[in-house]
Amino acid sequence: MVSCVFPGSFDPVTKGHLDLIARAASVFDRVTVTVMVNIHKSGAVPAEKRLELLRKACSRFDNVYVDSWNGLLADYMQEKKEKIVIRGIRVGSELDQELQSAAASRLLNDRYEVFFLPSDPRYTGISSSAVREISAFGGDISAFVPEELTEEISALLSNRNQ
Amino acid sequence: MVSCVFPGSFDPVTKGHLDLIARAASVFDRVTVTVMVNIHKSGAVPAEKRLELLRKACSRFDNVYVDSWNGLLADYMQEKKEKIVIRGIRVGSELDQELQSAAASRLLNDRYEVFFLPSDPRYTGISSSAVREISAFGGDISAFVPEELTEEISALLSNRNQ
Amino acid sequence: MVSCVFPGSFDPVTKGHLDLIARAASVFDRVTVTVMVNIHKSGAVPAEKRLELLRKACSRFDNVYVDSWNGLLADYMQEKKEKIVIRGIRVGSELDQELQSAAASRLLNDRYEVFFLPSDPRYTGISSSAVREISAFGGDISAFVPEELTEEISALLSNRNQ
Amino acid sequence: MVSCVFPGSFDPVTKGHLDLIARAASVFDRVTVTVMVNIHKSGAVPAEKRLELLRKACSRFDNVYVDSWNGLLADYMQEKKEKIVIRGIRVGSELDQELQSAAASRLLNDRYEVFFLPSDPRYTGISSSAVREISAFGGDISAFVPEELTEEISALLSNRNQ
Amino acid sequence: MVSCVFPGSFDPVTKGHLDLIARAASVFDRVTVTVMVNIHKSGAVPAEKRLELLRKACSRFDNVYVDSWNGLLADYMQEKKEKIVIRGIRVGSELDQELQSAAASRLLNDRYEVFFLPSDPRYTGISSSAVREISAFGGDISAFVPEELTEEISALLSNRNQ
Amino acid sequence: MVSCVFPGSFDPVTKGHLDLIARAASVFDRVTVTVMVNIHKSGAVPAEKRLELLRKACSRFDNVYVDSWNGLLADYMQEKKEKIVIRGIRVGSELDQELQSAAASRLLNDRYEVFFLPSDPRYTGISSSAVREISAFGGDISAFVPEELTEEISALLSNRNQ
Repeated sequence: MVSCVFPGSFDPVTKGHLDLIARAASVFDRVTVTVMVNIHKSGAVPAEKRLELLRKACSRFDNVYVDSWNGLLADYMQEKKEKIVIRGIRVGSELDQELQSAAASRLLNDRYEVFFLPSDPRYTGISSSAVREISAFGGDISAFVPEELTEEISALLSNRNQ
Repeated sequence: MVSCVFPGSFDPVTKGHLDLIARAASVFDRVTVTVMVNIHKSGAVPAEKRLELLRKACSRFDNVYVDSWNGLLADYMQEKKEKIVIRGIRVGSELDQELQSAAASRLLNDRYEVFFLPSDPRYTGISSSAVREISAFGGDISAFVPEELTEEISALLSNRNQ
Repeated sequence: MVSCVFPGSFDPVTKGHLDLIARAASVFDRVTVTVMVNIHKSGAVPAEKRLELLRKACSRFDNVYVDSWNGLLADYMQEKKEKIVIRGIRVGSELDQELQSAAASRLLNDRYEVFFLPSDPRYTGISSSAVREISAFGGDISAFVPEELTEEISALLSNRNQ
Repeated sequence: MVSCVFPGSFDPVTKGHLDLIARAASVFDRVTVTVMVNIHKSGAVPAEKRLELLRKACSRFDNVYVDSWNGLLADYMQEKKEKIVIRGIRVGSELDQELQSAAASRLLNDRYEVFFLPSDPRYTGISSSAVREISAFGGDISAFVPEELTEEISALLSNRNQ
Repeated sequence: MVSCVFPGSFDPVTKGHLDLIARAASVFDRVTVTVMVNIHKSGAVPAEKRLELLRKACSRFDNVYVDSWNGLLADYMQEKKEKIVIRGIRVGSELDQELQSAAASRLLNDRYEVFFLPSDPRYTGISSSAVREISAFGGDISAFVPEELTEEISALLSNRNQ
Repeated sequence: MVSCVFPGSFDPVTKGHLDLIARAASVFDRVTVTVMVNIHKSGAVPAEKRLELLRKACSRFDNVYVDSWNGLLADYMQEKKEKIVIRGIRVGSELDQELQSAAASRLLNDRYEVFFLPSDPRYTGISSSAVREISAFGGDISAFVPEELTEEISALLSNRNQ
């Protein structure tokens, strides 16, 4: 069985994340989507809500599991004995930062590999930060987040803007 | 008549901005320079002062108008029925972020186009953030901002540093 | 009246080119699509055929004209008294070369401006060189070129492969 | 079983290729290394020799198979019913071209995914083209190619230089 | 005598910094490592401690001196009559920002030159920010900082996390 | 004494090259400009002519010497016991290729360092290939090459175009 981990802050989950998860789920035996929690900085959406949203969004997949971790990715991979990390990638300049981050992780734990999966060009404009910014100005986020979660995410983000 | 919008935070306006405005004004019928105000974060120079500085700097052009907007660019373009946005661009890695931002806007309003105009290489080093940083260390910003506004901008920024 | 020039080798014209032409035509008064002919190197499709294909593809637009030029773009712009060049752009690293080319042209003729229009992400994979390569291996180019020209382009390219 | 394909021209195989193959082999059930042959252009090393060198280099792995293909990758993936392509990647600007190529393939066959695996930074300077260039000047390629193949590759390339 | 300045925030010093310093020291007559202090924002490690750590780390070199400066680099270079700045560089997208910064400095003082020295690929993953992040999660920083300073840096950073 | 080598094909020498040479000459004790000759491919200007043009252009400097080499840079550096290579750099995406090339050289000879000196933004559009292309179309190269060599370079390149 070949499984992979798809880590991120998912603050909040977007259509772009779901497309990557669906594509990973179609070629791997098992995908674990892991919310990386940082106790030193809170997100726009509380960590437990981010997990809940992801669970709802991923319930459509048979081989996708949702998890969370408060710590370094290198430690998570060791703890879970996972060997493949999947990261979405949109453009070259984004890769340069990812490569530095992957090289740093490798110095802590060299028993796993990071694979980059290109985002579908249709989702180029979609990111969690775009969702947060549009919401801050009262804009419509329905083109950016999973349809069934639009209302819930809008409510969570507008509470925060008040 | 073909008009365009040149949006930005202009915090503060620089010689680089003015060069782009002059070049856009020389090929379009009408250019609107729009200060994008973000009520969620204040700039180094207050929004109304940024507008005032731009108005002074642009008074030399017949076909340039100064405006401001508190909201999303996509909404501004729809409200004003404008169809062309002009963005200055210096290097490739800067473009990657701009392309993501343009793709995000397109998901909100696909009735306008973003055109990128390369900055004159002589202005490569000039940016609002460079002006703010030099000012924070008491340096001389006269090579970076319009000559007639140097004193006023220096005063506005040094008040802030105190 | 604000007009622009969209230059290229169009060897052959693709769906990506047509999308850029359509978008430029929707915001400018007039667009001239100019086949840059290089007598020092022949293309995969002969120059006169490239013009013919473009004319067919652009007949759907009221304000688009097709032209050709054997020489430098800077000289063309001067000769035709045009002031705006439109170039499609897909990613940051592509821009870096374009910026050098634009800066070179500016040293020859600084009375025009180059604007970069981002390709629609759906067309990221589409380029004339992809069409030529797929054709060389006998692949199906129908997703890459205008529907009504698929047969003609396939025939032109397969003649060349023999 | 999750298998992947590692395609390339391998003209000639390098230590960098072998590192990527070893890392893919350690996390996937099966890796097929496929020499993409282009009948329209010959390489520095003949295609059958490239295959032979790869077979020798990969004999150390239990789950790595060597294959060749004269055609488009999209067709190969369909023919072999493979769902994962692995591509090595060194830097961001290299990715931009890879993304365009991956997007082109997707238009021909969207039933497989391309994953990018970052080259180990120690192999940044290693590429088939560097091997060919060093050999053309009579330099020592032993730091660039698998130890057991150094002599054979040197001989193949120096024949060509004569 | 040809001397150079290697400026940075060194918050904290890493193995990557030391490699660059060693390489600069091996080809220049004299290297001054200068901690750029910013009174407007405090670092993770206090400025005087950063200097002390650097002095310990650089004591192994005969021709390396440690200094600090609270102000603009352009002013430092003028004050010290130095003519060469050395900056480490890892990837292309990092360079773009550096070039803008160098061009800004040149507008303030054009009597010095900035040279970029590529980081050894083995240190791609090593940066002060990686050290701070790993430390924030209680990870092991010993692969990232000079061996003899690991304990001291760990203590300085963990005090801050409390 | 700290000396450096500025290698290149100089096919032909441009104003951009001269600016880099002048800046290197102002901060190093001695600069050797080395024409890298490739017997496997001829340039637009014959190698001996490229040397002659460089010698004329560099006669204005006291501490600049002109040399040529048919082989690998790594071997040249070893033979001449030089420790510093200077390479001009314009943009980030150009750097990525340079870094790979520098890393390859380091595998052959790790006793020298490559430093990248950013091109003056005014010379962004200037390159030997731009000179060759403009000349091929009968354009005016006087903005691109040293004034005193314009006629000679024009004649050398137009002979070739015939």
